[in-house]
Amino acid sequence: MALARFSRSGLRRSGSAICSYADERNVPFERGSVQESPSTYMRNVRGGGNFSYLSNTEKVDYSCMWIRGMRMTPQYHFAHAQSVMEGYDSEYESTRYPTLEATKPGEKPRVVVLGSGWAACRFLKGLDTKIYDVVCISPRNHMVFTPLLASTCVGTLEFRSVAEPVSQIQKALAKDPNSYFFLASCTGIDTEKHEVYCQSVENGALHHEPYQFKVAYDKLVIASGAEPLTFGIKGVKEHAFFLREVNHAQEIRKKLLLNLMLSQNPGITEEEKERLLHCVVIGGGPTGVEFSGELSDFIMRDVRQRYAHVKNYIRVTLIEANEILSSFDVGLRQYATKHLTKCGVRLVRGVVREVHPKKIVLSDGSDVPYGLLVWSTGVGPSEFVKSLDLTKSQGGRIGIDEWLRVPSVDDVFALGDCAGFLEQTGRQVLPALAQVAERQGQHLVELFNKIGTKNGGKALSMKDIPLGEPFVYKHLGSMASVGRYKALVDLRQSKDEKGISMAGFLSWLMWRSAYLTRVVSWRNRFYVAVNWATTLVFGRDNSRIG
Amino acid sequence: MALARFSRSGLRRSGSAICSYADERNVPFERGSVQESPSTYMRNVRGGGNFSYLSNTEKVDYSCMWIRGMRMTPQYHFAHAQSVMEGYDSEYESTRYPTLEATKPGEKPRVVVLGSGWAACRFLKGLDTKIYDVVCISPRNHMVFTPLLASTCVGTLEFRSVAEPVSQIQKALAKDPNSYFFLASCTGIDTEKHEVYCQSVENGALHHEPYQFKVAYDKLVIASGAEPLTFGIKGVKEHAFFLREVNHAQEIRKKLLLNLMLSQNPGITEEEKERLLHCVVIGGGPTGVEFSGELSDFIMRDVRQRYAHVKNYIRVTLIEANEILSSFDVGLRQYATKHLTKCGVRLVRGVVREVHPKKIVLSDGSDVPYGLLVWSTGVGPSEFVKSLDLTKSQGGRIGIDEWLRVPSVDDVFALGDCAGFLEQTGRQVLPALAQVAERQGQHLVELFNKIGTKNGGKALSMKDIPLGEPFVYKHLGSMASVGRYKALVDLRQSKDEKGISMAGFLSWLMWRSAYLTRVVSWRNRFYVAVNWATTLVFGRDNSRIG
Repeated sequence: MALARFSRSGLRRSGSAICSYADERNVPFERGSVQESPSTYMRNVRGGGNFSYLSNTEKVDYSCMWIRGMRMTPQYHFAHAQSVMEGYDSEYESTRYPTLEATKPGEKPRVVVLGSGWAACRFLKGLDTKIYDVVCISPRNHMVFTPLLASTCVGTLEFRSVAEPVSQIQKALAKDPNSYFFLASCTGIDTEKHEVYCQSVENGALHHEPYQFKVAYDKLVIASGAEPLTFGIKGVKEHAFFLREVNHAQEIRKKLLLNLMLSQNPGITEEEKERLLHCVVIGGGPTGVEFSGELSDFIMRDVRQRYAHVKNYIRVTLIEANEILSSFDVGLRQYATKHLTKCGVRLVRGVVREVHPKKIVLSDGSDVPYGLLVWSTGVGPSEFVKSLDLTKSQGGRIGIDEWLRVPSVDDVFALGDCAGFLEQTGRQVLPALAQVAERQGQHLVELFNKIGTKNGGKALSMKDIPLGEPFVYKHLGSMASVGRYKALVDLRQSKDEKGISMAGFLSWLMWRSAYLTRVVSWRNRFYVAVNWATTLVFGRDNSRIG
Repeated sequence: MALARFSRSGLRRSGSAICSYADERNVPFERGSVQESPSTYMRNVRGGGNFSYLSNTEKVDYSCMWIRGMRMTPQYHFAHAQSVMEGYDSEYESTRYPTLEATKPGEKPRVVVLGSGWAACRFLKGLDTKIYDVVCISPRNHMVFTPLLASTCVGTLEFRSVAEPVSQIQKALAKDPNSYFFLASCTGIDTEKHEVYCQSVENGALHHEPYQFKVAYDKLVIASGAEPLTFGIKGVKEHAFFLREVNHAQEIRKKLLLNLMLSQNPGITEEEKERLLHCVVIGGGPTGVEFSGELSDFIMRDVRQRYAHVKNYIRVTLIEANEILSSFDVGLRQYATKHLTKCGVRLVRGVVREVHPKKIVLSDGSDVPYGLLVWSTGVGPSEFVKSLDLTKSQGGRIGIDEWLRVPSVDDVFALGDCAGFLEQTGRQVLPALAQVAERQGQHLVELFNKIGTKNGGKALSMKDIPLGEPFVYKHLGSMASVGRYKALVDLRQSKDEKGISMAGFLSWLMWRSAYLTRVVSWRNRFYVAVNWATTLVFGRDNSRIG
């Protein structure tokens, strides 16, 4: 009850800061081997200027954290938390937030996992919950089967078929008395104290202010993923759709169906019809290409039948600065280019300068009017990762060693899109692929289970345990569907090696079967198969819900 | 192109009214046999004071039209349109809006259908499109299979399984060159000119201002449905969820899952947990009872397994002012009461006085804290119906005669929840049931097809055609599921007659099979069956999307 009492008093605070800024600035700022640039330090000071846990959270406009359905990791709310604050450990600080306290001797060690993507879920799935208690913290309660997400935008697959609840992947989260799933964003990490700071996703269900709490860990696994790259181009976040979450796909589908119906209204000019039904995809990676292919299928099979009035106006344009599918074999690239063009997808080489509500401006000054704009130019570090005061790898990811440890701090591991090998490991930063993330999750969970059986699960207790083989990534190949029952399969181990590559209907069958077997649960495997079958028989569903 | 040009100029207007208010007030205001009360007249004058088509739309706050996902028919934007404006027919007025012009001699007659519910869709399904062109105008592009909507809130069924695209129900809407579906709300009817006024659902995709247009009809079928009754109770629209549309069900599911997860956060007090997990249903009709039953199933089967930390906090309370399921046989009512109580649903007799964000206040002054509030106390006339200048039946519905005609005007028919028999017919206003709406739709479409073959389809051309048998409603009975594989079946023809009534597992089987056969398309029939089977095998899905 004491915990509860503190939580409430902390939340009903008046907003007055007890610690003053001037006092806290003089806190010694140092951390073992971490290389801290002056700019990082300044950012911390600026971001969380007042080191009180309370006052700086008041200034943030929380409504901005949900831009067009995209989950943004709130930035800098807890920038102070990443700063080492040795000697600063007042009762005030430690009791102000509701806390899941550190495990006691005799209790199982607690693994805290940040994220619910490929890396986190593979890790969660394999964790031996006889050894560990587990806490998963993520702003979404399900894993998204990303390779099939593009198919849901046009109704080939249903949304639920590509979402798998985390508590189904690791049942201990739902059942074990000391394991939890928290629907929250992590906003900061205190690696010294072994605590993470969280902010609940709640949309005002609890209080007007965001609900914040702390969770103590014995081991921390950061698998919080990356965010779409926009290259600072004006208007992207406001007007373009990303394609990373299920609700992004829902929004794209709603918009596409809306535009199809709007363009039939009396009095819509030819020009306006063409604009409304111009679907522009930026980025020629696998996501952009697969989405273009799905769109073209949708147009050829469903729009022609169901939107006869406007079927001649709908077009798809794929804009890419360099070559499409640059990681694929040159023969496959040529095949894809030819096939997409045949399917009516216009391929344009160009660089976007600005995005406006109804048109984009390319760097050559030309305007491209659009009705639907999907942005998939790859991912980069999230604001949360940027805000962490840890040594970074090339590309700004969390720097890790060969065992996926964050070397400068104890008991912290990072994997998936948010992590990259440090330069001193002599290894390259791996691409942001599901394949990499899943393999890392698998490697790390085996390590954890091994450490756990040797009593190394608790905080600061794994020093003398041998870690075994380091993680080595072996690329199994890449696949991409290009629409009309065709796909590419590139089984080369890397871009410069030789190996099998193929394209066509057989590849498409391989693509479908490979993904069907990779779908996490039997329930979803069944649903994906049923969805594919019904799409074949009945066509795509075009109800516009919401 | 002239049409298009006018449409654009009309939309890019500067806002200055060309006709002045004073001039237009003197327009003769009369209409045949319509009884117009002074208050209706005043409302028209106040609502659409300036008779110019343009200026009064500027004053409306369009953001209010989407309250918590509920589609509201915008009120009074076109109140002037219902006023007869004889002698007022300037070029200005007729060209200002993009228009689907009246059909010409030699062209097929055009039926305009307002709505996409049970009545509208049954009508659309049966319409002979060799005789008629058809235009359907509705703010949603699908029909909702309402009896199964409650099941989607907890994941027993998926959302798509209960939504059927209108263009699948009547394929001419998608294919025929002169048939259309418009995603729009009807805002007014000019019965003299045979035109309806529409406002497109567009969410800013076209312009900042709402996109408005006119559609001329030969025959008009009003099946725009009803709106949830709130009895003017403060806070209902702001804080309660209705359960009438698929997106309502989506919102309820999101909220329920959110509360289940939030209540597990560190530091949530016992009291707060109890509040968050208290699901309150207002209204003991079939919808309220079925939703309560589904919730109780969800709790017993899924919450216990998947939310072990908080399973003992979740409760369901059903509040009803009188008796639950009042239209059912007394034995069935008793069965339902006993069964629901056994399943853990608390039945409370009470009247709601006020709704606050986290509690409701009953008329006896007691507070009921809640985390989720679902409001299903029946339906009443929509703002659109209220705004129509037509004689009303008891309960404020559009008054109709035995052939579903609106007797005071030509070529206008009304059916479903928005229509009621006029007092002079000597018949009672029928209950707002899917069964009634569907039967009326069927009767009317047969009448239309008959009239059409006798060349009575065009405007003002059916005067001498005999209408055949009037519509007679024969009640086939009522069904309601109460959870845990139990349902009620009441086959009495009316409340006071004798007949078969039964309850239990066999009734539940009847309930499921009856609804499965009623589902509109084979696609959805298949999906409903698949959903039921997977729920039985795998449990309900609990991904929280969006």
